[in-house]
Amino acid sequence: MNDIQNKAITKRDVDFAKWYTDVVRAARLATYSNTKGCIVFEPNGYAIWERMQSVLDNEFKKTGHQNVYMPLLIPENLMNKEGELVNGFAPEVAWVTVGGQKELDERLCIRPTSETLFSDYYSTVVKSYRDLPKLYNQWCNVLRWEKETRPFLRSREFLWQEGHTVHETKEEAEKETLQMLNVYNDFFHNYLAIPSIVGKKTDKEKFAGAEYTYTVESLMYNGVSLQSGTSHYFGQKFSRAYDIKFVNRENKFDYAYQTSWGVTTRMIGALIMVHSDDYGLVLPPKIAPRQVVIIPIKDTLEVNDLANKYLDELNRNNIISYIDNTNKSAGFKFAEAEVNGIPVRIEIGPRDLENGKVTIVRRDTREKIEIDVNSDIVNIVNNLMNEIQDNLYNRALERRNKQTYVAHNLEEMTNIMNEHPGFIKAMWCGNHECETKIKEIKGTKSRCIPFDEEQEHIDDKCVCCGKPAKEMVIWGIQY
Amino acid sequence: MNDIQNKAITKRDVDFAKWYTDVVRAARLATYSNTKGCIVFEPNGYAIWERMQSVLDNEFKKTGHQNVYMPLLIPENLMNKEGELVNGFAPEVAWVTVGGQKELDERLCIRPTSETLFSDYYSTVVKSYRDLPKLYNQWCNVLRWEKETRPFLRSREFLWQEGHTVHETKEEAEKETLQMLNVYNDFFHNYLAIPSIVGKKTDKEKFAGAEYTYTVESLMYNGVSLQSGTSHYFGQKFSRAYDIKFVNRENKFDYAYQTSWGVTTRMIGALIMVHSDDYGLVLPPKIAPRQVVIIPIKDTLEVNDLANKYLDELNRNNIISYIDNTNKSAGFKFAEAEVNGIPVRIEIGPRDLENGKVTIVRRDTREKIEIDVNSDIVNIVNNLMNEIQDNLYNRALERRNKQTYVAHNLEEMTNIMNEHPGFIKAMWCGNHECETKIKEIKGTKSRCIPFDEEQEHIDDKCVCCGKPAKEMVIWGIQY
Repeated sequence: MNDIQNKAITKRDVDFAKWYTDVVRAARLATYSNTKGCIVFEPNGYAIWERMQSVLDNEFKKTGHQNVYMPLLIPENLMNKEGELVNGFAPEVAWVTVGGQKELDERLCIRPTSETLFSDYYSTVVKSYRDLPKLYNQWCNVLRWEKETRPFLRSREFLWQEGHTVHETKEEAEKETLQMLNVYNDFFHNYLAIPSIVGKKTDKEKFAGAEYTYTVESLMYNGVSLQSGTSHYFGQKFSRAYDIKFVNRENKFDYAYQTSWGVTTRMIGALIMVHSDDYGLVLPPKIAPRQVVIIPIKDTLEVNDLANKYLDELNRNNIISYIDNTNKSAGFKFAEAEVNGIPVRIEIGPRDLENGKVTIVRRDTREKIEIDVNSDIVNIVNNLMNEIQDNLYNRALERRNKQTYVAHNLEEMTNIMNEHPGFIKAMWCGNHECETKIKEIKGTKSRCIPFDEEQEHIDDKCVCCGKPAKEMVIWGIQY
Repeated sequence: MNDIQNKAITKRDVDFAKWYTDVVRAARLATYSNTKGCIVFEPNGYAIWERMQSVLDNEFKKTGHQNVYMPLLIPENLMNKEGELVNGFAPEVAWVTVGGQKELDERLCIRPTSETLFSDYYSTVVKSYRDLPKLYNQWCNVLRWEKETRPFLRSREFLWQEGHTVHETKEEAEKETLQMLNVYNDFFHNYLAIPSIVGKKTDKEKFAGAEYTYTVESLMYNGVSLQSGTSHYFGQKFSRAYDIKFVNRENKFDYAYQTSWGVTTRMIGALIMVHSDDYGLVLPPKIAPRQVVIIPIKDTLEVNDLANKYLDELNRNNIISYIDNTNKSAGFKFAEAEVNGIPVRIEIGPRDLENGKVTIVRRDTREKIEIDVNSDIVNIVNNLMNEIQDNLYNRALERRNKQTYVAHNLEEMTNIMNEHPGFIKAMWCGNHECETKIKEIKGTKSRCIPFDEEQEHIDDKCVCCGKPAKEMVIWGIQY
């Protein structure tokens, strides 16, 4: 009876890719649009993004950042000022060539990212060390002309935030780069219940134009990695290209030090691929747009009174709750709550009520709990939501640990990726060529070089060439 | 001493257009960008938009709407399905013709508005009356290839929200159209302190593709009108063009009834042009992103203690406050608070403190009020903010009433517009040709046909042709 609606969902272990799109559709998170490669964010999907925005925006403001908004379109000559960025993005941008029924003299690029516009702006407002730092962020849409797309994970247009900051000193800018990485990592752990790992990207994998890139990497249920957030240190590269020059404390001209950092609607994809199951979406309570659904099993006075009483108490205590009093069968409502990933479901039936009981169902384990009608509902739900949040994190951590392997040579690496992909810890010599060779193993790439405190000495030699190893790298197949 | 920073602002009565851009620059609301016709929303400007979003979004959700997000780009064939809309927007759209380094087979239009995409989406999800209504809204950027631009009031790219709803019946859709007009009008009155007027647009002035358009019109300080928000009833026009067909309660196919409604970042321009003065920005407290600034005149223990105590009390009571403890002179800080439009300024000086006094300055009248150090600061500030909010509204209403005229013939109309533009109440026969003729008077257009309860009988005859009049129309020169 619980499976009315989610019957249509392909089993996760049968066909993971199909399961994913089935969940996206069944939970009405997004749908394909008639604009190729672009999706429609439906209410259930967009509401998750709004929750993410609200938590992150608050974190950004707490760390001193302000929001701004830059133009969507970038004139070609402005885009071309920083060579590495242009080369990196050239294959995947879209160009406006006609406006107001006329061919344009200069074509305009739809922003794939806004380093150019921020740098151009900063060059006009940063004159003295007194104008620094500038800690700006924007929430916006960006466009990258992807060939293969997948809802949330990769689409031509996506939503994101991009922080862009300029600083007086290298130290301050580097501190900012690390700080924002930590803001992301904490968000993944505390809200998304995803045990991400962090570190530095190799030169090959860093952002076009960055001196270095920090990354948040997470592992999906099927062992595939997802780059989930990045924080870039630019040094003076862009400030030299765009002339962000200021008078420093020694009364001399210097170029500003810059960072940028971003996370995207791809995080919704991560939530699905880490937590959800054969019954549909599973959401950590702390990011769920609706936390509790109350389902009256029959339309009687007693049932409705109790439903309203619970609703009132829960909402008054900032637990986002609603009553499903649509004109559908109880079984259908249970299934719908399940497929939509509502963390806690309260079922109120007249027969249970006669015995002074009410049933609560937690979405993560689908376990039913009977409670006394007169229990402190707020306390019970709060505790249950904490339990669910912890359980989702621990479940994901346990799985990630199981899917994290060690390899000493290419043969081991190949076997692991063929049998059961995941994160592979392996030593690396620091050479690009080894990365290229490793990529032949089903597209395996370096995910990140963990920070010192997470470094492990697995071997003396590079997993690929056998020459002396520099450091341990986490490798994975990526989305 | 208070004029350090705002000296640069042209006097409002000397050159209104220059005064406007001076205020925009001095208050650091926005600046021109190197993308022609597009502005950079700087932190002070964007923060006002965030406040507007937060209030309106809450109102939309209270009235049952949900947020979604549609693609930025519209394929040409999809855009072309509804003829009136295409014709209306054709002159002012931008086209993407190259993507991923290839000429596209079909060019893509950057959305000037999203009726097409919403309609296309609704045609896939609306099958039965049970699927109705759909009450969706999106916050996004749009692009219109304007020739002359002016920060906030008219720029090629702007930010807005666009609500798009589909309904089972004409009645329900018409009720929605009116409801959203009222949401806007209430927002203008209660938050922006702008005494807007509402009514129906004439056929000539309505939205391309609408059956009719309701509008919120406001009057700027210089007597020029601003169309400030619109709510459109589409009937079945788009649903027929895009095939939004459903099975109704009689088990027959019917086309859905549709509405759309939007307000934009142009509202920031209205705030400036209605309330601000020669000293810079003036903001109604209920929309100000920062409501109170506390300025310690000297860096002493007593001064700082009191500043912190006030800050704490104010913020704890949800009054958005901050201490300006930058390394600038007190005079500079006063001027800065003024130019930035902080509604309430608290000045704490050591000499005043010795006498147990503190000075409060209200931004609207620039009046200084001495209060006792131990007063209930929260209560005082709350009362003062209410007073400021009311005063701004009343001031604007008084001015609007003064600038609202009556005309019986074209000569009177011409004289009024030449001497002192404003709203003109005049009778109209209902004929397009008279509107065209009236436009020759410095571009005077019909602003709206007020609703029945606001209709006045001024004359029997049309102000233009002298034939029998149908109704009273408000006319004005527009931005």
